Amino acid sequence: MFLDHYELTMAEGYFLTGRENSSANFDYFFRKNPFGSGFTVFAGLQDLVEMIQDFNFDSYAIDYLYKGGFRDSFIEYLRGFSFRGNLYAPKEGEVVFPEEPILRVEGTLIETQLLETLILNTLNFQSLIATKASRLRHSAGDRGLMDFGMRRAQGWGAIHASRAAVIGGVDSTSNVLSAFLYDMISSGTQAHSWIQSFDDELTAFRKFTETHPNNSVLLVDTYDTLKSGVPHAIVVAKEMEARGQKLLAIRLDSGDLAYISKSARKMLDEAGLNDVKILASNQLDEFLINSLVQQNAPIDGFGVGTSLITGQKDAALDGVYKLSLVDNRPTIKLSEDISKMTLPGKKKIVRYFDESNKFYADAIVLVEENENEIDSVFHPQHANKKSSLKGLKREVLTSKVIENGKVLVGEKTINEISAYRKFRISQLPDEHKRFEFPHIYKVGLSNDLLKMRDQLFTEFNQKG
Amino acid sequence: MFLDHYELTMAEGYFLTGRENSSANFDYFFRKNPFGSGFTVFAGLQDLVEMIQDFNFDSYAIDYLYKGGFRDSFIEYLRGFSFRGNLYAPKEGEVVFPEEPILRVEGTLIETQLLETLILNTLNFQSLIATKASRLRHSAGDRGLMDFGMRRAQGWGAIHASRAAVIGGVDSTSNVLSAFLYDMISSGTQAHSWIQSFDDELTAFRKFTETHPNNSVLLVDTYDTLKSGVPHAIVVAKEMEARGQKLLAIRLDSGDLAYISKSARKMLDEAGLNDVKILASNQLDEFLINSLVQQNAPIDGFGVGTSLITGQKDAALDGVYKLSLVDNRPTIKLSEDISKMTLPGKKKIVRYFDESNKFYADAIVLVEENENEIDSVFHPQHANKKSSLKGLKREVLTSKVIENGKVLVGEKTINEISAYRKFRISQLPDEHKRFEFPHIYKVGLSNDLLKMRDQLFTEFNQKG
Repeated sequence: MFLDHYELTMAEGYFLTGRENSSANFDYFFRKNPFGSGFTVFAGLQDLVEMIQDFNFDSYAIDYLYKGGFRDSFIEYLRGFSFRGNLYAPKEGEVVFPEEPILRVEGTLIETQLLETLILNTLNFQSLIATKASRLRHSAGDRGLMDFGMRRAQGWGAIHASRAAVIGGVDSTSNVLSAFLYDMISSGTQAHSWIQSFDDELTAFRKFTETHPNNSVLLVDTYDTLKSGVPHAIVVAKEMEARGQKLLAIRLDSGDLAYISKSARKMLDEAGLNDVKILASNQLDEFLINSLVQQNAPIDGFGVGTSLITGQKDAALDGVYKLSLVDNRPTIKLSEDISKMTLPGKKKIVRYFDESNKFYADAIVLVEENENEIDSVFHPQHANKKSSLKGLKREVLTSKVIENGKVLVGEKTINEISAYRKFRISQLPDEHKRFEFPHIYKVGLSNDLLKMRDQLFTEFNQKG
Repeated sequence: MFLDHYELTMAEGYFLTGRENSSANFDYFFRKNPFGSGFTVFAGLQDLVEMIQDFNFDSYAIDYLYKGGFRDSFIEYLRGFSFRGNLYAPKEGEVVFPEEPILRVEGTLIETQLLETLILNTLNFQSLIATKASRLRHSAGDRGLMDFGMRRAQGWGAIHASRAAVIGGVDSTSNVLSAFLYDMISSGTQAHSWIQSFDDELTAFRKFTETHPNNSVLLVDTYDTLKSGVPHAIVVAKEMEARGQKLLAIRLDSGDLAYISKSARKMLDEAGLNDVKILASNQLDEFLINSLVQQNAPIDGFGVGTSLITGQKDAALDGVYKLSLVDNRPTIKLSEDISKMTLPGKKKIVRYFDESNKFYADAIVLVEENENEIDSVFHPQHANKKSSLKGLKREVLTSKVIENGKVLVGEKTINEISAYRKFRISQLPDEHKRFEFPHIYKVGLSNDLLKMRDQLFTEFNQKG
């Protein structure tokens, strides 16, 4: 039932016009990287595959549809529904670019149509958050990075957001449910309420380190960070030392983090507490972290909430799901905006590498084309712009994930997916990683694909 | 398990320090209206109450916590956990303002702490979306307004987002799952894929109106709106007329909606199809709808996606959950920013009405104060600013929703909640509804509350 109403209306229409066995090919792609980024991290695949397996209409759903004005014969058809088609995708964690047919779904017109909303919802969102996390990771370097976003997440979106955040590069999450579901690391120590619940801050710190000697991060801004919080943390850290224990860190959650972290570091160091780390949170994003790092703020770890878990400033990846083939007839959508013309046919993505094994360019080619024979590609909008790819190492990114409804690939751990993302980002040239005005990565079309698209366009214009 | 890790760490700490019977009062409030709005629509209460009822630690959760390094005695304490405290709130759909203690939770320190993330996640998100929807409704006037956002929603956030959208003022949603769960109206007709799946647009329109004569909205921009889509729709509408049927509407999904809707209206009218409505979608928000309405674009209904379902440009309401009383001791948080000082004690919200029964001002007062005796309030930051409320009609907004863990209020339908929102917004003076620089609504503190806060502040400074 995770679908837009019109999927049902259309599926019913396909059914009633006797096209329940018509075949179709849909592409999932997006038109713009989020956040002005030079790339997007592809995430959500494993969840999607699982949800496709579970996609059916149970008796509650069937009863509901009977009340919804759908035709009986169609509802009975849905009773036995499951996805029996094929699905092709890159590995989860892959670095992908606009216009690329990232996911390709083959099957009957009805089954491929019914999956649209689930595919868009899952991939748009997790790819958005994984991309955001990868930017935060880029700005934080090898400092700690924690997801603190659950309370500001968009409802149950929190569950997948924290997963995507870890894929994209955060070290841990505050989200216990996601950690439980996806076998990730959750962590967290104390809020202002812990401090306030005791008669004074020093007692609150003492009690916390007594009950949690191995997980001791003290939040120092409840009353006054530098006059009260840090001095009290130092007292308690010294007491811990005397017991043979160690205070792990203090956390700053308000004020000017550059100024306060430097002052706090000085106070800690003067007390001989050079090992006590400083964590910071409070409305951080990749730009603020960048700025703090540039100011040499002695912050060892960042906790990021709203901007990570909601993908602020962009709230959504603009991914779409478009029909490119029906009953072996290639098809396009033109729209009012010619740059939004879709690509017909069944396609795959080929990635080319330069001599230092960095990404050089991608090509969108028809599946029947042999990638080893494709040595040049064309600009999607300016077909006179041609790039030579001769002699370059190449790799097909998309492979079959589901065949006739059955999953072909084994489950990966979140750590494995995150490691793949890290590896692939290391292969992306630096100029595409810039936060502002990144160099645009080259994605071209094969000659055959271009010809197919232009022929359909010409045919339409002749008819018109 | 829907919680941040630190809730567990703190609850364990309260337990291990022998404070499992300590009592506490927490307030939920936010500091800033979203979208630069002059008000916020309070939403999510009914879901929250249900999730609080279901909040427990099942055997999977308990097993997981055993692996997580928590103390055995604490985990066993959680095994039997359920919320047995009290919860106070305004009616769902109420119009609320910054700094107001909207939700108040009383109970043991542990149970009130453990609910923090669930409360913040649910109320922050649904209030954000309901507020956005109310702005869209304001701009759309009495034109149709449809939620098309599921595909761009933040994962499963879609489920609650569509609910909140209807509370805030949209007429229907494309989201079948939410419609099913919350007994709302879902609707939807066709995507570009329907059109593309047929050999030509005219056939696609014909087949659709044949299979769906009573639900006939034709999407006219797959190839060329004015040269192909609208003319074909007119042909089919005329054919329907001849069969005694009626085409309901066409939908525009790209291009300049003001220009195209005017041209399409003219073409429809010239064909005698004055009753065929025009719907529009494509990256709409309240500002674009405003602009279209001002340009007299003949659009009868708007479908809104991303901006509604994610609350763009703001991705989150900044609500927080702060401890204000522990074991009958009032408590405050000071922080680095003095305007972020919290309000101590147990409080309620009183609303004052002017002679025309419009909202005049709100007061935050201590629960033990008699609202009939409170005839003046003070500015939270500038205590020398005093407002007289003498003789004004008044109403206490917050009432008990859960008592000793048991729900006191009956369930409301989404329509009832939405109707209450509509009524309350009608009582809000227009100057607070402006999209840009709305007049700031007056929210003051009672003298007793102000004294309590200032005394705690003074005490802290004397200690420091």
